[in-house]
Amino acid sequence: MDGKCIQEDIKKLKASSVALCTSSESVRNELLLAIAQGLHRDWEIIQKANEEDLRKAHEDNLKESLVKRLIFDQDKLASVTEGLKQVATLSDPINKVLEKRILDEDLLLERVSFPIGVIGMIFESRPDALVQIVSLCLKSGNAIILKGGKEAFNTNTALMASIKKSAEKSVLGNSWLLLLESHSDVDVMLKMDKEIDLLIPRGSNAFVRYVMDHTSIAVLGHADGICHLYVDEKADLDKAIECAYDSKIQYPAACNAIETLLVHKAVASTFIVRMAKRFEEKGVRIHGDAYTCSLIDCIPYEEGDYHTEYLALELNIKVVENYEEAVAHIAEYGSHHTDAIMTEDKQLIARFLREVDSADVFANCSTRFADGFRYGLGAEVGISTAKIHARGPVGLAGLMSSKWLLVGSGQVVSTYTGSKAKGFLHTEMSTDGVSLASGDVQ
Amino acid sequence: MDGKCIQEDIKKLKASSVALCTSSESVRNELLLAIAQGLHRDWEIIQKANEEDLRKAHEDNLKESLVKRLIFDQDKLASVTEGLKQVATLSDPINKVLEKRILDEDLLLERVSFPIGVIGMIFESRPDALVQIVSLCLKSGNAIILKGGKEAFNTNTALMASIKKSAEKSVLGNSWLLLLESHSDVDVMLKMDKEIDLLIPRGSNAFVRYVMDHTSIAVLGHADGICHLYVDEKADLDKAIECAYDSKIQYPAACNAIETLLVHKAVASTFIVRMAKRFEEKGVRIHGDAYTCSLIDCIPYEEGDYHTEYLALELNIKVVENYEEAVAHIAEYGSHHTDAIMTEDKQLIARFLREVDSADVFANCSTRFADGFRYGLGAEVGISTAKIHARGPVGLAGLMSSKWLLVGSGQVVSTYTGSKAKGFLHTEMSTDGVSLASGDVQ
Repeated sequence: MDGKCIQEDIKKLKASSVALCTSSESVRNELLLAIAQGLHRDWEIIQKANEEDLRKAHEDNLKESLVKRLIFDQDKLASVTEGLKQVATLSDPINKVLEKRILDEDLLLERVSFPIGVIGMIFESRPDALVQIVSLCLKSGNAIILKGGKEAFNTNTALMASIKKSAEKSVLGNSWLLLLESHSDVDVMLKMDKEIDLLIPRGSNAFVRYVMDHTSIAVLGHADGICHLYVDEKADLDKAIECAYDSKIQYPAACNAIETLLVHKAVASTFIVRMAKRFEEKGVRIHGDAYTCSLIDCIPYEEGDYHTEYLALELNIKVVENYEEAVAHIAEYGSHHTDAIMTEDKQLIARFLREVDSADVFANCSTRFADGFRYGLGAEVGISTAKIHARGPVGLAGLMSSKWLLVGSGQVVSTYTGSKAKGFLHTEMSTDGVSLASGDVQ
Repeated sequence: MDGKCIQEDIKKLKASSVALCTSSESVRNELLLAIAQGLHRDWEIIQKANEEDLRKAHEDNLKESLVKRLIFDQDKLASVTEGLKQVATLSDPINKVLEKRILDEDLLLERVSFPIGVIGMIFESRPDALVQIVSLCLKSGNAIILKGGKEAFNTNTALMASIKKSAEKSVLGNSWLLLLESHSDVDVMLKMDKEIDLLIPRGSNAFVRYVMDHTSIAVLGHADGICHLYVDEKADLDKAIECAYDSKIQYPAACNAIETLLVHKAVASTFIVRMAKRFEEKGVRIHGDAYTCSLIDCIPYEEGDYHTEYLALELNIKVVENYEEAVAHIAEYGSHHTDAIMTEDKQLIARFLREVDSADVFANCSTRFADGFRYGLGAEVGISTAKIHARGPVGLAGLMSSKWLLVGSGQVVSTYTGSKAKGFLHTEMSTDGVSLASGDVQ
């Protein structure tokens, strides 16, 4: 597609987002189920497309880990259709009452949740992510522009064709979702800040950084995951070893895996020797400061190591004088993603939770818990290290904005201003129950 | 100051924001009171500076309305110091528990409020706004970069010098606040997206648009306020006339004043004739469509009128066929700020509240109610028409981000993954009570 064509498609998509925003819960849920059925209906086409992608991946000698993520087989189909059905059962995120206040007699204010509008999502390789993203956007009433990895081009195209076919039969139509094909399409999208309300890039850090640097649209995401675990002098060393091990080993390529282990000097000799043995089982490469190198066999620290996101079985170990040095190190080198302390000192835990300014601040557990599913958010749309809108693992709530509703009986502001101004009541009300927008207007 | 110097000041400010974020409530409240005292202490200097600004304003033949906003007299002093004391009594916005969930035995998750970090605020003319902004940022633990209008240069400089003098004696020091002097300083600031987390421009629409177009930092604000009032066929016409009158007259230069009155054709002849008489008292200029022009003496509609924010005693009147045409007009020409319907049809009210995608959607009251103080938000930091972070009138909550806290007893993720994965409890807890960061760790 050429740039002009994409622009027009995105404008059309924005126009169709209005109907989506105000559509009923049942219309959206029915379409979710229809999409699930449709994927089964079109399974043969999807399967063939995926085989083509896998054939090409082998031809291009793609890394085994990437090829694995590309596979869209019967199991994946079962899992994404199960996901669609689950999302359909979630409560409607639109028109939830978030605040409610009586301003004056017969003058009732509400803040209710409302879709953000148009979301741009860029993801890599995994075709199942496409279905998941579409389902969350549909549920939350957001129009969606998608760009998947080029390795999954055929699978994504087949999935999108199936979804569009199902959507066509719904009153919502199918112009609220769009699959971009090329990198140059993405560049067109990054410039359309009038039409697009939020970008969610998922993929390599370099790519997320590229998106952040080339758009003025709000971005929900994180470019780096330089996470730390600090082992305090009052740590339970058995727990510390297990948590440090899990934080590095459980999934080394994850953004919430640690890159640097900070160790209080009082426990350094005992802890580091034991820890190194444990890491050795997995062949973890350790970059150590001078003290660490005096205790174990490791790679001496080099400039830049503390800024490196290894995303592999590799990490730094640094011995610190005290708690303050650990926190200062995290502030200087961390990416404000996820940082943890191991200590039995409860006052120090509270201090760490207060003083460390990261999206996720933990005590006595693995950094790998920083995740929407583990947090109980239902679905995860991404992890954000921005301070605006949403921070840390973001669930469906991250796809919602809000609006203020005010229903009166002819009130005017001049009554409440000037020397004889009437006062407001400002009585806080429970947010339980239906919104003013639901039809039951008092 | 040259650009390089400003850059260094902003970097220093960012560094000092860390201490501010984690400062205790009492330290921040004491400084708020000290600033109030300090303004009285330095009153003579501030008064002289303001006289100088007023002298220059008269010399430059500034509009009377602008000169009025410049005045910083004993009354303004009393009002801003009263404001400082009031802000000191507000509950601490930092470390409020927003969500709380038991993930598993001895594994407790909390989401708590936390300062955004560094705010850039650009405002015009009114020097009292400077004190108000500093007080809200200090209370909420945010470092603040300010740029006031050049007409208030001397007053702002004197106020800032007094505030800095008071802050110097606090443990917080005074490098967390900075006053920019020139437009070129603002341009330097707009580029510092690594240091600044949020911009809040208050001022002319043209200026806000300039800011939005020249930065990749998140902006809380609105460039336009094209607001509508739709008088439905089932409207109570007495109420409709009062609400329309208030929506235009009460403060015509406000962003939430209406620019276009939409009238259902069934009530057009009665309503428009009566309304025009009412507007005539105040000399309101009416731009009417053909139907309106056939009923009253007015300026015939010209291309572009519906896109014009008059900000004066001037508005459009347009007759519509039905509700749908009114809503379509609002969607096409509105700025998604504040739009209202007048009708006694309760189902139609609910439909309007659902279908209109504006920051503030009203029924049977004046659009002028769209305001933080009237909404009962305590203080207003701005009105946003963005869909991200905050929308509509924004209180102190708009200056807050959040972080996730997780406290365990040595848990690792590998326990909860794989074929023998342990399940999570995900038990929702009440958010009453103190945060894990307060020191009472279970």
